[in-house]
Amino acid sequence: MINQLVDKIKKTGAPIVVGLDPMMRFIPAHIRQAAFAELGETLEGAAEAVWQYNKAIVDAVYDLIPAVKPQVAMYEQFGLPGLAVFDRTVKYCREKGLVVIGDVKRGDIGSTAEAYAAGHLGRVQVGTHFYRSFEEDFITVNPYLGTDGVAPFVKVCREEKRGIFVLVKTSNPSSGEFQDRILRGEGTSADRPLYEAVGEQVAKWGADCMGDSYSYVGAVVGATYPEQGKILRRLMPKAYILVPGYGAQGGKGADLVHFFNEDGLGAIVNSSRGIIAAYQQEQYARFGEQGFADASRQAVLDMIADIGGALAAR
Amino acid sequence: MINQLVDKIKKTGAPIVVGLDPMMRFIPAHIRQAAFAELGETLEGAAEAVWQYNKAIVDAVYDLIPAVKPQVAMYEQFGLPGLAVFDRTVKYCREKGLVVIGDVKRGDIGSTAEAYAAGHLGRVQVGTHFYRSFEEDFITVNPYLGTDGVAPFVKVCREEKRGIFVLVKTSNPSSGEFQDRILRGEGTSADRPLYEAVGEQVAKWGADCMGDSYSYVGAVVGATYPEQGKILRRLMPKAYILVPGYGAQGGKGADLVHFFNEDGLGAIVNSSRGIIAAYQQEQYARFGEQGFADASRQAVLDMIADIGGALAAR
Repeated sequence: MINQLVDKIKKTGAPIVVGLDPMMRFIPAHIRQAAFAELGETLEGAAEAVWQYNKAIVDAVYDLIPAVKPQVAMYEQFGLPGLAVFDRTVKYCREKGLVVIGDVKRGDIGSTAEAYAAGHLGRVQVGTHFYRSFEEDFITVNPYLGTDGVAPFVKVCREEKRGIFVLVKTSNPSSGEFQDRILRGEGTSADRPLYEAVGEQVAKWGADCMGDSYSYVGAVVGATYPEQGKILRRLMPKAYILVPGYGAQGGKGADLVHFFNEDGLGAIVNSSRGIIAAYQQEQYARFGEQGFADASRQAVLDMIADIGGALAAR
Repeated sequence: MINQLVDKIKKTGAPIVVGLDPMMRFIPAHIRQAAFAELGETLEGAAEAVWQYNKAIVDAVYDLIPAVKPQVAMYEQFGLPGLAVFDRTVKYCREKGLVVIGDVKRGDIGSTAEAYAAGHLGRVQVGTHFYRSFEEDFITVNPYLGTDGVAPFVKVCREEKRGIFVLVKTSNPSSGEFQDRILRGEGTSADRPLYEAVGEQVAKWGADCMGDSYSYVGAVVGATYPEQGKILRRLMPKAYILVPGYGAQGGKGADLVHFFNEDGLGAIVNSSRGIIAAYQQEQYARFGEQGFADASRQAVLDMIADIGGALAAR
């Protein structure tokens, strides 16, 4: 799947992923009203609005991009109807030929991590049958529990040729609270921040889980921390870096060049509200609320140009 | 809810929580066969087996214990039917008067953490209505993203009088890989391990979120690390400590006394397979597979005696 992701990035010339984080306040009024008219102001109604919104955006942009990243929290908050739409969105995007990165940030130990890995990336056994439950191609994983918490995912990645992105340096303002703390060196190793220690482990975990040129084990590093991105790029040369924080969170194309390798590969930049709620921004107001999906398409084109320009200019 | 948890621990004399982690290999053959006969070897069949198994165990032990801790991964692996049974289990346990700790280990930033908090502990808005989606009393939260990732949960805890347990020092063998790394002191603070820095933040997060004697913000510290438990107990005097790793993972009653405060409160010890799969252990083999729920009840009684004895002897 990492090979497929790299191929699709090359074909589209778009090292970007659209974050499908459908907050209710992003969804145009006419979609919400239609869903509520049919199903009431219920969890089912909310889920239906999310689905119609997602489908329109995916239909408008799928030919331009390699991948989408649904954020499961935005679905999980609506309970079972919300999760049914998460599942439907994942399947629909895969039908459209998109690589699907489930932003689930799961992480646990031993048999529990095995269950998450089976449920999201692998197959679960029931009697003599095997089933795929959720069907993401990649998911995000939290490393706080150490190798015990990551190894079961890596095992499934190897078996299923699917992948993970491990949180290394997140895009949020307080990510430094623990991630930037300086660890005392051990043995011959020098003092260095926690995110470097995690990045080094990502490179290790990924080493025996390689696609053609990149590993099935990638990393999450926020666009908002370009200096750290530069260091981590060198530390994990074979890890694809999923870069959140572009656009709404403040990252710009020029900040992102150091997340990429010399070959122009190695990173995929996520934008969520910057794309899916583009119509709410002044820059795209001309599309109007009815034209929200066209606004999203234009925002994708602009993002491709911004990042492409920054990479060409370096 | 922390007050209710403390009250129920006092009433039952049982500072324990039963982990509802229903792996298929724990479920007695007659329950699996009945479910598969009805629904086939499908995700629905697996979910039905989980539900019947959970219900029988809860019915057998609910009067002895204050709380249960369903591990969501064990349900999520079976997709939507599995999550429907997670939801059903949470609601059933609440009806039985049990405090429900959802072991979900969620953690994300900003609006995403808000969505998880609303979906698991609070209410989600749909139009002019508010709904509870999943309805746990407490959930577990991963701290790797820092205050941004925890504050939205704390806010909902304050509003809803529900609670969280933040992962501080987990019970697994490789928890030390990052959690035990020594952080270089800053300003006047000395060098110390990452788990202490996280523990200190737990105390801060919980300070303005207090119940009568304990905070709505608790911590997870593994039974397998009694020395660290001793340190963390002092560092977070108002945090309830959820202690996994008893029994199957190797922790014993005598290892646990330092997780408790002088008042005999402040900790709640989880056992999962040690209780729910007791019938598979030699010690409880006399109950037989048909008597699995009675075996679970006996295992709860034995666990209460073990921990009570250790606390009395200190």
